[in-house]
Amino acid sequence: MTLILEYPNTQLKECLIEELQLQCTSWRFAVEANNLSPWNRIPEECANYIKDYMTGKGYQFDLDRVSNEAEIYARSVELKGDGKDAWIFDVDETLLSNLPYYAEHGHGLEIFDCMKFDEWVENGIAPAIKSSLKLYEEVLSLGFKVILLTGRSERHRNITTYNLIKVGFHDWDKLILRNPEDLKKTATLYKSQKRDEMIEEGYRILGNSGDQWSDLLGSSISDRSFKLPNPMYYIP
Amino acid sequence: MTLILEYPNTQLKECLIEELQLQCTSWRFAVEANNLSPWNRIPEECANYIKDYMTGKGYQFDLDRVSNEAEIYARSVELKGDGKDAWIFDVDETLLSNLPYYAEHGHGLEIFDCMKFDEWVENGIAPAIKSSLKLYEEVLSLGFKVILLTGRSERHRNITTYNLIKVGFHDWDKLILRNPEDLKKTATLYKSQKRDEMIEEGYRILGNSGDQWSDLLGSSISDRSFKLPNPMYYIP
Repeated sequence: MTLILEYPNTQLKECLIEELQLQCTSWRFAVEANNLSPWNRIPEECANYIKDYMTGKGYQFDLDRVSNEAEIYARSVELKGDGKDAWIFDVDETLLSNLPYYAEHGHGLEIFDCMKFDEWVENGIAPAIKSSLKLYEEVLSLGFKVILLTGRSERHRNITTYNLIKVGFHDWDKLILRNPEDLKKTATLYKSQKRDEMIEEGYRILGNSGDQWSDLLGSSISDRSFKLPNPMYYIP
Repeated sequence: MTLILEYPNTQLKECLIEELQLQCTSWRFAVEANNLSPWNRIPEECANYIKDYMTGKGYQFDLDRVSNEAEIYARSVELKGDGKDAWIFDVDETLLSNLPYYAEHGHGLEIFDCMKFDEWVENGIAPAIKSSLKLYEEVLSLGFKVILLTGRSERHRNITTYNLIKVGFHDWDKLILRNPEDLKKTATLYKSQKRDEMIEEGYRILGNSGDQWSDLLGSSISDRSFKLPNPMYYIP
């Protein structure tokens, strides 16, 4: 009797779990396709889904795929070799992973706390995203000039340099951080202006890797852009 | 003994199925985030995954979400009311669904056959995408001018008009189809040029809904773009 009664409940539960999985996948799709308005934190009901995604194979598969696609493209590009063939990389969640920090803060469930995050940044212990390091080295060996364009502020320059070098990144042409006058700009505007300046300096922006659409859209858009996955937070 | 031997096999099989699911989800995300190079057909190993997605709740959830997000945005926009507040819709897989056709052709597994697809188009029986019809009516009632911008060629104008009206779409300002001189252009270029012309005519392109990135990117980009899901085919 117990078994018979439990059976439909279990089925119902499984159906609800499956439905929630689909809804959270749908939310993640909306994030990655840039369909959502600015959002502050992940939907509460998707907290476990996002945690499983970020700490499981899903995130790794997505990272590997985007790096592989970028590598295929990078190898297909004919470079002029005049030192102006540029590939832009964002830093956080593109080259460096803040997953250890976000694991302590609900993977995006907690509202972003810039004080606490700054403390984490100043530790200089963010690990490399391995697939991005592979792409980075390939891009360099092909002869691209690497430009790092990050939303981090200028006062984190030293620790950012230290952290990047410690985990294997090297030989960049420029590391561009936010100056005080950039702090109030959206990332889209700040990064567009910096790309505009690169174009004025004669760079050809052939590739751009970033985990936020604000790394990729705006003016002076790259010939090809690569959107790394990030369902944890949104930067306008 | 049999049971003991079968157990690890079943587990292994489940693991492999789960891994394939994750890989196909990863592929779908790469499509939707515009990370892939031009592709001709879906990966063979993802045929069942894509079929399940398209015919199950996944596709519906994604369609509903993108329409809801677009509605929220549409309601938030202040219109000038001078007849130049424009919202662009693509047609295929945006307003009209060709799912009945693609169900007969492997949901993207078969290479696109323009002759067969043209026959399907000329039947004029494509159903409405319900969530898009809801958005369409909302956008109209808010006072936007609707412009339909499709990759279909001019010779399908009558049947396209018939099909759209039959399933509930009405009151568009323009239905723009490809002229002979547009046929060799990429969709990105053709649609960009048509948007450029709209801007010259004084339209403000406030919203744009399409299932292909080539509906949304290029020049005269809309203030907000909404990418409907479509893992079945790619139009450059």
